[in-house]
Amino acid sequence: MNLPKEQPRSLLRRAGDVVVDTAPVPEPGPGQVLIEVAAVGVCGSDVHYFDHGRIADFVVEEPLVLGHEASGVIRAVGAGVPADRVGQRVALEPQQTCGRCTQCLTGRYNLCPDVEFFATPPVHGAFARYVVLAAHRAHPVPDTLSDEAAALIEPLSVGVWAARKAAIEPGDRVLITGAGPVGLLCADVARARGAAWVAVSDAVGHRLEVARQRGAHQVIDAIAGPLTDSLEPVDVIIECSGAAPAVRSAFEVAAPAARIVLVGLGAPNLELPVAEIQIKELVVTGTFRYANCYPAAIALAASGAVDLDGLVTGRFGLDQVAEALQASKTDPQSLKPVVYPGR
Amino acid sequence: MNLPKEQPRSLLRRAGDVVVDTAPVPEPGPGQVLIEVAAVGVCGSDVHYFDHGRIADFVVEEPLVLGHEASGVIRAVGAGVPADRVGQRVALEPQQTCGRCTQCLTGRYNLCPDVEFFATPPVHGAFARYVVLAAHRAHPVPDTLSDEAAALIEPLSVGVWAARKAAIEPGDRVLITGAGPVGLLCADVARARGAAWVAVSDAVGHRLEVARQRGAHQVIDAIAGPLTDSLEPVDVIIECSGAAPAVRSAFEVAAPAARIVLVGLGAPNLELPVAEIQIKELVVTGTFRYANCYPAAIALAASGAVDLDGLVTGRFGLDQVAEALQASKTDPQSLKPVVYPGR
Amino acid sequence: MNLPKEQPRSLLRRAGDVVVDTAPVPEPGPGQVLIEVAAVGVCGSDVHYFDHGRIADFVVEEPLVLGHEASGVIRAVGAGVPADRVGQRVALEPQQTCGRCTQCLTGRYNLCPDVEFFATPPVHGAFARYVVLAAHRAHPVPDTLSDEAAALIEPLSVGVWAARKAAIEPGDRVLITGAGPVGLLCADVARARGAAWVAVSDAVGHRLEVARQRGAHQVIDAIAGPLTDSLEPVDVIIECSGAAPAVRSAFEVAAPAARIVLVGLGAPNLELPVAEIQIKELVVTGTFRYANCYPAAIALAASGAVDLDGLVTGRFGLDQVAEALQASKTDPQSLKPVVYPGR
Amino acid sequence: MNLPKEQPRSLLRRAGDVVVDTAPVPEPGPGQVLIEVAAVGVCGSDVHYFDHGRIADFVVEEPLVLGHEASGVIRAVGAGVPADRVGQRVALEPQQTCGRCTQCLTGRYNLCPDVEFFATPPVHGAFARYVVLAAHRAHPVPDTLSDEAAALIEPLSVGVWAARKAAIEPGDRVLITGAGPVGLLCADVARARGAAWVAVSDAVGHRLEVARQRGAHQVIDAIAGPLTDSLEPVDVIIECSGAAPAVRSAFEVAAPAARIVLVGLGAPNLELPVAEIQIKELVVTGTFRYANCYPAAIALAASGAVDLDGLVTGRFGLDQVAEALQASKTDPQSLKPVVYPGR
Repeated sequence: MNLPKEQPRSLLRRAGDVVVDTAPVPEPGPGQVLIEVAAVGVCGSDVHYFDHGRIADFVVEEPLVLGHEASGVIRAVGAGVPADRVGQRVALEPQQTCGRCTQCLTGRYNLCPDVEFFATPPVHGAFARYVVLAAHRAHPVPDTLSDEAAALIEPLSVGVWAARKAAIEPGDRVLITGAGPVGLLCADVARARGAAWVAVSDAVGHRLEVARQRGAHQVIDAIAGPLTDSLEPVDVIIECSGAAPAVRSAFEVAAPAARIVLVGLGAPNLELPVAEIQIKELVVTGTFRYANCYPAAIALAASGAVDLDGLVTGRFGLDQVAEALQASKTDPQSLKPVVYPGR
Repeated sequence: MNLPKEQPRSLLRRAGDVVVDTAPVPEPGPGQVLIEVAAVGVCGSDVHYFDHGRIADFVVEEPLVLGHEASGVIRAVGAGVPADRVGQRVALEPQQTCGRCTQCLTGRYNLCPDVEFFATPPVHGAFARYVVLAAHRAHPVPDTLSDEAAALIEPLSVGVWAARKAAIEPGDRVLITGAGPVGLLCADVARARGAAWVAVSDAVGHRLEVARQRGAHQVIDAIAGPLTDSLEPVDVIIECSGAAPAVRSAFEVAAPAARIVLVGLGAPNLELPVAEIQIKELVVTGTFRYANCYPAAIALAASGAVDLDGLVTGRFGLDQVAEALQASKTDPQSLKPVVYPGR
Repeated sequence: MNLPKEQPRSLLRRAGDVVVDTAPVPEPGPGQVLIEVAAVGVCGSDVHYFDHGRIADFVVEEPLVLGHEASGVIRAVGAGVPADRVGQRVALEPQQTCGRCTQCLTGRYNLCPDVEFFATPPVHGAFARYVVLAAHRAHPVPDTLSDEAAALIEPLSVGVWAARKAAIEPGDRVLITGAGPVGLLCADVARARGAAWVAVSDAVGHRLEVARQRGAHQVIDAIAGPLTDSLEPVDVIIECSGAAPAVRSAFEVAAPAARIVLVGLGAPNLELPVAEIQIKELVVTGTFRYANCYPAAIALAASGAVDLDGLVTGRFGLDQVAEALQASKTDPQSLKPVVYPGR
Repeated sequence: MNLPKEQPRSLLRRAGDVVVDTAPVPEPGPGQVLIEVAAVGVCGSDVHYFDHGRIADFVVEEPLVLGHEASGVIRAVGAGVPADRVGQRVALEPQQTCGRCTQCLTGRYNLCPDVEFFATPPVHGAFARYVVLAAHRAHPVPDTLSDEAAALIEPLSVGVWAARKAAIEPGDRVLITGAGPVGLLCADVARARGAAWVAVSDAVGHRLEVARQRGAHQVIDAIAGPLTDSLEPVDVIIECSGAAPAVRSAFEVAAPAARIVLVGLGAPNLELPVAEIQIKELVVTGTFRYANCYPAAIALAASGAVDLDGLVTGRFGLDQVAEALQASKTDPQSLKPVVYPGR
């Protein structure tokens, strides 16, 4: 296959300003592959960069390619990568890590201080026709997975990681607070691990309806009143909203020795009922992306345990990235817009 | 409800000799309940006592009531047990433990040196109209579970325990060796924990067919050749056959850091490839019954994740216990005969 | 040995009001032992009841015997307890639990909802000549342990539990915030688990000096400035002060994937830097007393790994309990007053 | 510092044939350092290669530099390594791993299928004046550690890894079978983790004497009779002898839920009492070298918790390697000969 020399890509120049420009097609270095991007999900972080030009200390100072939930096809390989990987359909794990620090060596490479992550300044993302990636981060997917599903392996990995941290066991009672794409996927993974009962809370009725359709045993209107009014104590809470009341309520509905995993980003400081951590010996942790989750996520999607295609609520070309990034504002029922750089 | 003073029960007097006699209906002591038995599954250990009058050092020296996979309805309560438990449908966890030893206090009550287990000499089992049990070992079941399913929570708990010991995670590749009821249930629990791929091996074609119907991704004729010919390395092996070649093969098909759980009872001594344990840093353990598994097992059965009714292959009255105990010999397709003491 | 019918005991009638009265010597029930109390450490909770007549929702409504850090000698046994335990020197684990609930059955009996704990209203404590206790909670101690050391197995168990929750491994860098008796013992246990480096912070210079003498590698004046000024990131923080600034600082000095264990009781609600939990994937938990720690604590004291006698800073008779309870106010260097009911 | 172009090294040409030859001083590649070797311990595997020319499938087909327990000083750095590392004293972790496979990414890099390990054909070891190593495998040591001690961080890491796999907790009763250097170090690490009681068994009286001097609570003559005659059940067994009777006895003296770690290499197949694994729910695993142990091992040696210098029983120059490799035969009290390539 003859590869082009140049490619179109979508560039965020500053808050609210996205354009398509032309850039060289990159060459895969040693241990890397060149991937023709098939589909890219829009994440809340992409929207946040578009709206504000920054997330916390990460500031868009140079034009940035957004998009980090991506799938594609390997079109070329760098030195040391088997040539027969060309043509392989893959889900892109969009992080590069040093491989030498304590975090990398102990299996927590997501905490590598030198991690480079797609679409986090100054690292470009996947709203482009072609990207390069370390070969071992390009995870093969079966043909039964659509391009969209392969792209959404990324947020599913967030859910796999959260559920793993929560150590969900068959029979557990699980509460997910927040029914955005990540919350919905956490609920799915909880059921796929054998949770006896999964409740989902959110302030948006439509999202609760989606949660119910995907198999939640109970959905809870977060506005109607405290969660403790609706719930018996639960063994696991995965907090995906970032909303202060939801975080607080997690500690209150927690059963003795329950596990609380904080996934949703909210205020950096929150008043918490720390006495509950002590009296009930709760275990509280948080997630920062994921490590070693893609193979499990692909297996869950491939087996049908988790439906990824059903999350897609809009389809956009590379020249429609601005629309895709604003879909959550223009369409109240938007869950997961997807960009197709090749269309 | 007026309770009778006497009840029929099935008594194993010696190997091969089972009779129905009449015995007093027991009184529930403090903390106990009286249960009218609804259904009792026949376990291989019951068959072994019937055939040989002993299992290892446990010898039937006095007439013994067999049967330990039981469900029923609470008909009376002892001191300290809430009266409103009368009428409750329950699965019987057939063990009594001391509550004071290191094993009990650390959550491993199945290893209590003073454990008393139904149908293990000299402790009577459940082939009787009524039995008493500690209230907290009588686990409520939902009405959606049949009497048979509630009885088979017992072997399902064996599978829940084995899968817990194996720490099966979503995405794992799992091999179950032996497709008797316990092996089949281990396969079900593996899938319910999100295993990506579950293979089942056995020497009996009919059992492999059942495994396939229940959802195994691959079934393997254990006679056709070494397992290593059929399989890529697996993350988990749950050995349910007790057959020496299966135990050995577990070590060979194990991937690095794989977990092997020995459930099936076989020869007390076996030649094992210990170098594999070292080179691959395998983790090998075994199970002795189970602890704290009934609630999870009930949840898995209630959610439909595990089908228990489908295991039942024969139905017998209390006067047909000898036939039930010989079903595996008379019916090559027998999996799980069930005795109904009340019929 | 002839046991007396009556005994003296120290009774807290209301805040600030302690008297010695006479009460019957109790009879050990089934599974219990009667213990002649040798020594009882004064805990901060005893002082709090004396000062305020309550701790949170636990209110001294009836006269209460304080004291829960106790040692003694078994003088009589109840039914079912081997007679040869009479004469045995023991450390008293001062809690009684139901043995039937989920928490008890899974090895977390300290979270039993029906726990009865010495010196927590309305359960009497050990400032008395004789007490009864479940036989399996009376842990034998070697003759090399003094009566005081045997009594202080109780706070040492708090440290053993905290260090176990923190999963301290050889090579870990550990920070203990708060250098009261529990903080000092947590530091000792950290070293006994092989921690490479243990720092202790406190606002009181004398306590830091004690910490240093007991082997802390660094001591930090909590008033001089933020802990982050003094410290490289640490793998484990055991918070024993209950002070809001210390709790907050724990999150800031934590290395990626560090474990934080909250032991000290402080304000029930605190503003915490939750973003740190997420970005660094910290694991935060708390302790509520302890479970299954006495044997390990006795072993650590008996081996010399932890020095308990060195904590004792005052010795009092039963008629001096009020003085013992006020020692921390009258003696700025007081660490652990001990009451000897038999003197 | 001017580095020489050539260096002497010790070469095993075939079984029993060791010579010193001259070879180029290697250049450190990107991410590597050049180390001037200070001291190298002789391991049983070196002796085995010298005696037999092979270990299992690893055959010395080309001349091989032996030695993998090494310390030294960094003399030059490759691209990407901070220049200020020159002059640093280091312990060499003698393995190179791919960093991309499942084992590497999940923190088990010792199981990397592409691992290259010093002195394992065809990878040269450290009986040479200079070696190159990945910078992150050259672990800085404090000046308080001697060159010999820094070299013996390698076998200490074997002990750290075994004790970590055994999850030794304060209060545990531990048995080490085999009192060679690794067994002695396992015993030391067990005590450093707070084990209440450590027993060591061996067939050689002198080694038992060393074990006792290093702090073992009990030493057991493995020839005098079965271990079960000498011991109450133990919580942990670390098997360091490779001797079949010791391996078998491990299962018999194991308490319920005990952990057995197989470190010593012996026959690849052994008859084992598998029923013990089941009845007592033992957890059996093995070790293959180690991962992420050097920092902890250095901390344990630096703190004085483990004495490494005391293991050294002979000192040899590069031209005396053959003598060093035969020390265990010529000196019955030999434990750890050390080679100094620079002398």
